[in-house]
Amino acid sequence: MTIEHTLREIGSRAKAASTQLQLLTTDEKNAILQAMANELHEHREVIKRENAKDLAFAETAQLSKALIDRLLLDDVRIDNMIASIRRIAMLPDPVGKILHEHEKNNGLLIKKIRTPIGVIAMIYESRPNVTADVSALCLKTSNAAILRGGKEALHTNQAILELLLAAGYKTGLPHHALQLITIPDHDAVRLLIQMPEYIDLAIPRGGPSLINMVVEHARVPVIKHDKGVCHTYVDKTASLDMALNICVNAKCQRPGVCNAMESLLVHEAIAETFLPRLQAAMEAHHVTLKGDHLSRKILPRIEEATDTDWYTEYLDLILSVKIVKDVHAAIYHINHYGSHHSDAIVSEDRAAQQLFVNQVDSSAVYINASTRFTDGGEFGMGAEIGISTDKLHARGPMGLEELTTYKYIIYGQGQVRG
Amino acid sequence: MTIEHTLREIGSRAKAASTQLQLLTTDEKNAILQAMANELHEHREVIKRENAKDLAFAETAQLSKALIDRLLLDDVRIDNMIASIRRIAMLPDPVGKILHEHEKNNGLLIKKIRTPIGVIAMIYESRPNVTADVSALCLKTSNAAILRGGKEALHTNQAILELLLAAGYKTGLPHHALQLITIPDHDAVRLLIQMPEYIDLAIPRGGPSLINMVVEHARVPVIKHDKGVCHTYVDKTASLDMALNICVNAKCQRPGVCNAMESLLVHEAIAETFLPRLQAAMEAHHVTLKGDHLSRKILPRIEEATDTDWYTEYLDLILSVKIVKDVHAAIYHINHYGSHHSDAIVSEDRAAQQLFVNQVDSSAVYINASTRFTDGGEFGMGAEIGISTDKLHARGPMGLEELTTYKYIIYGQGQVRG
Repeated sequence: MTIEHTLREIGSRAKAASTQLQLLTTDEKNAILQAMANELHEHREVIKRENAKDLAFAETAQLSKALIDRLLLDDVRIDNMIASIRRIAMLPDPVGKILHEHEKNNGLLIKKIRTPIGVIAMIYESRPNVTADVSALCLKTSNAAILRGGKEALHTNQAILELLLAAGYKTGLPHHALQLITIPDHDAVRLLIQMPEYIDLAIPRGGPSLINMVVEHARVPVIKHDKGVCHTYVDKTASLDMALNICVNAKCQRPGVCNAMESLLVHEAIAETFLPRLQAAMEAHHVTLKGDHLSRKILPRIEEATDTDWYTEYLDLILSVKIVKDVHAAIYHINHYGSHHSDAIVSEDRAAQQLFVNQVDSSAVYINASTRFTDGGEFGMGAEIGISTDKLHARGPMGLEELTTYKYIIYGQGQVRG
Repeated sequence: MTIEHTLREIGSRAKAASTQLQLLTTDEKNAILQAMANELHEHREVIKRENAKDLAFAETAQLSKALIDRLLLDDVRIDNMIASIRRIAMLPDPVGKILHEHEKNNGLLIKKIRTPIGVIAMIYESRPNVTADVSALCLKTSNAAILRGGKEALHTNQAILELLLAAGYKTGLPHHALQLITIPDHDAVRLLIQMPEYIDLAIPRGGPSLINMVVEHARVPVIKHDKGVCHTYVDKTASLDMALNICVNAKCQRPGVCNAMESLLVHEAIAETFLPRLQAAMEAHHVTLKGDHLSRKILPRIEEATDTDWYTEYLDLILSVKIVKDVHAAIYHINHYGSHHSDAIVSEDRAAQQLFVNQVDSSAVYINASTRFTDGGEFGMGAEIGISTDKLHARGPMGLEELTTYKYIIYGQGQVRG
């Protein structure tokens, strides 16, 4: 059987499962989720054993320490994974919610209601807890899911999915509602995203090569969970103490995540005062600065930032710094080099704040706060499938509601159009 | 200058214009729209003169009567086009609307607000009033628009856009907010939809070859306005008088539109009673029937429907008929062969109705009414850019709200993440 044939079978089964999933009640879905959480809890040794295989392979293959750390599932992380499933079970079910309803003069009743999207293909890398999160979020929204995790986490992902399915099938989960693609061939993803007859949405979450491949080849709708090249702009009217505190938090509190700051833009009028203070604070946190030619006049020891730097998500203790003429130049830089994720202005000037929030084309725009707050939990969603860097359908953290679409149901008594 | 270079200039100018559009107030946008409506009214002779050129070319090229009729702009149609712009000026502005707002314990205020999408590429065929409709809808939602109409309507589209721009530039429309691509080369569309750095959304509205080309080549998000293969399913519990009336309306009231019925599914238990009555009624309206082998046992004179028929949008007085075992078979057929547009059940059975509306995967699902009601006006939107046959972001009629996205604006006083 060719890979394409296998994938078409997976797709067609997922499509059939998605119709079955629509028959489950909220209580039935929540019971399955609780059973899944119990199963992971009871068989956590299986997960750890399979995880050890992936870790051993990662050591042999000399993967980076950061990557190995992301692969690791210890008891604390397994507990978190289980807690996340239970939290999703407790959240309100968006499916079936009436978004709008009106009766026309001719007696037609038009209801706009939330429905599942259908079949979601999730293509992700590294952290194996995504397997459990995505499964739970898709089940809660009555979507069928086709999962494609990174090969470095294959054993762990398989173990998790098998436990979820074992619990699910005992408690009423439709067959093929959750499927994991284990075909090692790279073509698998390309073929998967070219099956619009089966796949309603592809969500790639990972590094640039994965994202670019999906965007280039997809014939199904895509919502990218791309990199976070996040900026802080320190305006000439900023409280410099506040700006310093925000910058240190945005850069250093957890540098390896997508909402950490990667580039700092400083108004020319305060650069001479602010940059030396910034340098001292960042050096205390072991952050390496890179700068444009103007900032290097003030901080001569730092390395030059190239055009590539402005596009780069370091995910590390590195920060690029640029001096800008005004808020307009800051907005232009952010829209041009950024990734439309999270960007902040520190300013006491209402007009500058307003220009910034109106014109910066990002999912989350902050006034006088750290970009680190962009996530589903902080935004009140309870759980998220990731952070969309696209603008269509879902933007920013994608929770349960963002995993639904809608349809119009029209109730008549024989009405025809005149 | 190569075509690609020209298109990159168009894209880059549209992107710049989209930032400028965000600065316009609702009153300013409405004033521009009213000026545009006035301009079309005052210079309607220019439109008719340029339209005559397109019509003459269409006659010479021996285009179909239906196509020539769709090209034609007479005074009534020009009046409608003008009225549509004035109606859009009167509708509420969705941009800036607060969708959700909450304050966190730490004092952060998180607002989710509607924003423009950015740059919309609209690729359409035939009817030149789309040029005015799309321009007005995009301006009202502060989106920049790149228009690519059919070459058969080129003179008319150019005349309309020039009048809109003449009025717009006098009243504050940012330059390059509306651009029409007149490059005859077919590559223009393909190149346009491969510029994610400039184009936020492509909307193809037209025949299968246009839709397929866009889906195959796009690297930007796409919302398809594809064909309408709409069904009516007549259940065994249906009132047959009501069913007949609905079927005749759905097929005959305006057969050339996307929400007209193309296929009829009849429950086997009532086929022998219903089909002869249907045939008589349809023949009175000059409708040609085609049928599966079971329905041809009841109506032996009709032609056989092939597998291709079930996928076909006739846009003509032709109807394919199939006998099905039950509501499940009807649902399967609709999801498999349909285009997820508009589908109806005629039934007095609550359980069958419920199954049908839950499981039919279409933008509009009707109980005991004609599919002909699916349009923006009937659904209370005032105006629409077309009917989306996709499920992401916008489904069914796409009005002003569907031409927006959202962003989160977070107001702080120096908050950092702990």
